[in-house]
Amino acid sequence: MSHFADRLCQAIQEKRSCVVVGLDPRPEQLPPEFQPSPGASAEEVAERFRLFHRQVVEVVTPHAVAVKPQIAFFEPYGPAGIAAYLDAIAFARGRGLLVIGDVKRNDIGSTAEAYAAAHLGPDGADAVTVNPYLGSDGLKPFIQVAARNGKGVFVLVKTSNPSASEIQDLLVDGEPVYVWVARLARGLGEAHVGRSGYSLVGAVVGATQAASARTLRREMPRALFLVPGYGAQGGAAADCAPCFNPDGLGAVVNSSRGILFAYAEPAWRQRFSPEDWRAATEAAVTEMRRQIEQVRSAQG
Amino acid sequence: MSHFADRLCQAIQEKRSCVVVGLDPRPEQLPPEFQPSPGASAEEVAERFRLFHRQVVEVVTPHAVAVKPQIAFFEPYGPAGIAAYLDAIAFARGRGLLVIGDVKRNDIGSTAEAYAAAHLGPDGADAVTVNPYLGSDGLKPFIQVAARNGKGVFVLVKTSNPSASEIQDLLVDGEPVYVWVARLARGLGEAHVGRSGYSLVGAVVGATQAASARTLRREMPRALFLVPGYGAQGGAAADCAPCFNPDGLGAVVNSSRGILFAYAEPAWRQRFSPEDWRAATEAAVTEMRRQIEQVRSAQG
Repeated sequence: MSHFADRLCQAIQEKRSCVVVGLDPRPEQLPPEFQPSPGASAEEVAERFRLFHRQVVEVVTPHAVAVKPQIAFFEPYGPAGIAAYLDAIAFARGRGLLVIGDVKRNDIGSTAEAYAAAHLGPDGADAVTVNPYLGSDGLKPFIQVAARNGKGVFVLVKTSNPSASEIQDLLVDGEPVYVWVARLARGLGEAHVGRSGYSLVGAVVGATQAASARTLRREMPRALFLVPGYGAQGGAAADCAPCFNPDGLGAVVNSSRGILFAYAEPAWRQRFSPEDWRAATEAAVTEMRRQIEQVRSAQG
Repeated sequence: MSHFADRLCQAIQEKRSCVVVGLDPRPEQLPPEFQPSPGASAEEVAERFRLFHRQVVEVVTPHAVAVKPQIAFFEPYGPAGIAAYLDAIAFARGRGLLVIGDVKRNDIGSTAEAYAAAHLGPDGADAVTVNPYLGSDGLKPFIQVAARNGKGVFVLVKTSNPSASEIQDLLVDGEPVYVWVARLARGLGEAHVGRSGYSLVGAVVGATQAASARTLRREMPRALFLVPGYGAQGGAAADCAPCFNPDGLGAVVNSSRGILFAYAEPAWRQRFSPEDWRAATEAAVTEMRRQIEQVRSAQG
């Protein structure tokens, strides 16, 4: 299998899209036809997730480069939830989408290897998110498995939540912790740059502060950024601008609720009924793509 | 259900033990009777794990206060692996052991709530490990669910792996990042102190450096420390001394391989054949308990 960054860059160029659709299933927000019965078993809820995600994937495939299932929303449903998570991965990959497993795993040595085997193996995603607090011991096993399997890793560098600053913005020799994390990830990624010029070691970069995004773009020129928080979390397309390199590449942008449950969002709910959720999702993903392509082409 | 820290302190005092047995299953290290067949399915491996852990729990229950299943070793076996993880939790709790789910989860807002619902709900562990890189947004949802359910949280503060220093030891205003994390966790735990005087917000503290353990004991007087790395990872009982408070409480100490696969460890393999793995495990957990009680009583 070819290099993850090359596959992602190729998909971006072919589809002219940097859109990632987050699969964050919540039973109470599913369109009416997928609503589980009151007091439904874990198996029933997981089955609804499975059916819903397959249809979401069909709708977004022409417009998105990847889906990002958030495993936290599957885990409450135990083994059935994990089966639904794996089904979403297999189905999306079968349709030619890349899959980023948002698992934020972290551990060291053989334990990290076990996580990597679980999440970057043949049935796993194309890439996963990982947490850097344990240092390179906690990142290398994921990177090694990813390199072997043509897959990728997105290191949490700078997140977009308000309290991210409590640890990530602490100043070390005048520079925030997240810049130190960025350099650690850059160093580990240097040996894994593909023909696209990008490394299989990417970074999660919240785009809510333009200055930090610019700093990180400079610190990690060969990293693909996974930018969360577009749409429902208040981020706008313009915020993503500093995440792109002059080549117009270097970032993918995620929206979860804003696409998945577009039919219930203020922007769309007047135009689409809950029964028309597919049309609402397609309108939302198309509009997101259009807005980001505008920003992206202005960088090139 | 009563307060997690009170339950753990009561177990320590009743059993005169601070021992936590890590359940880190690896198919190739299972005693002969549990060895899966070559090319075994995930279901078969998971079933072997299930049977093995039930017997391990029977052997260690008189000598340990808790088991700590490491979910990373279950996740490669998909839904069947998760079922085996949940079975270990249910079986150990049924025998009166506390269960610490070593999941190192982390995320924010409703995503963290979903993780907490999955791992600290009725079928979940008594406590879980969480990663602090996202700040209090990533810790509060776990703490709130834990408080509601009589459960606990161990925040990764200072880990024992060599590269932990790359992020955790960076100096901020003359103090390492892990001390800042400790203060964040202490602040979040202050509202959740039980009758034992300990908070449901504990800390993972690698005891490989005595100076940092002493600093953290001072910074987090009301936190229970989960100390990893005893035995197989090279840590000795004496290293744990600074993790105890003058009351002789305040820490539990984990060993995984050293107990679970004692029959294969240098210290025991001459005395016990692989068929006698139960006797080896019992000898190892008894000896670990004895050594730590010695250290602990010297603190009181």
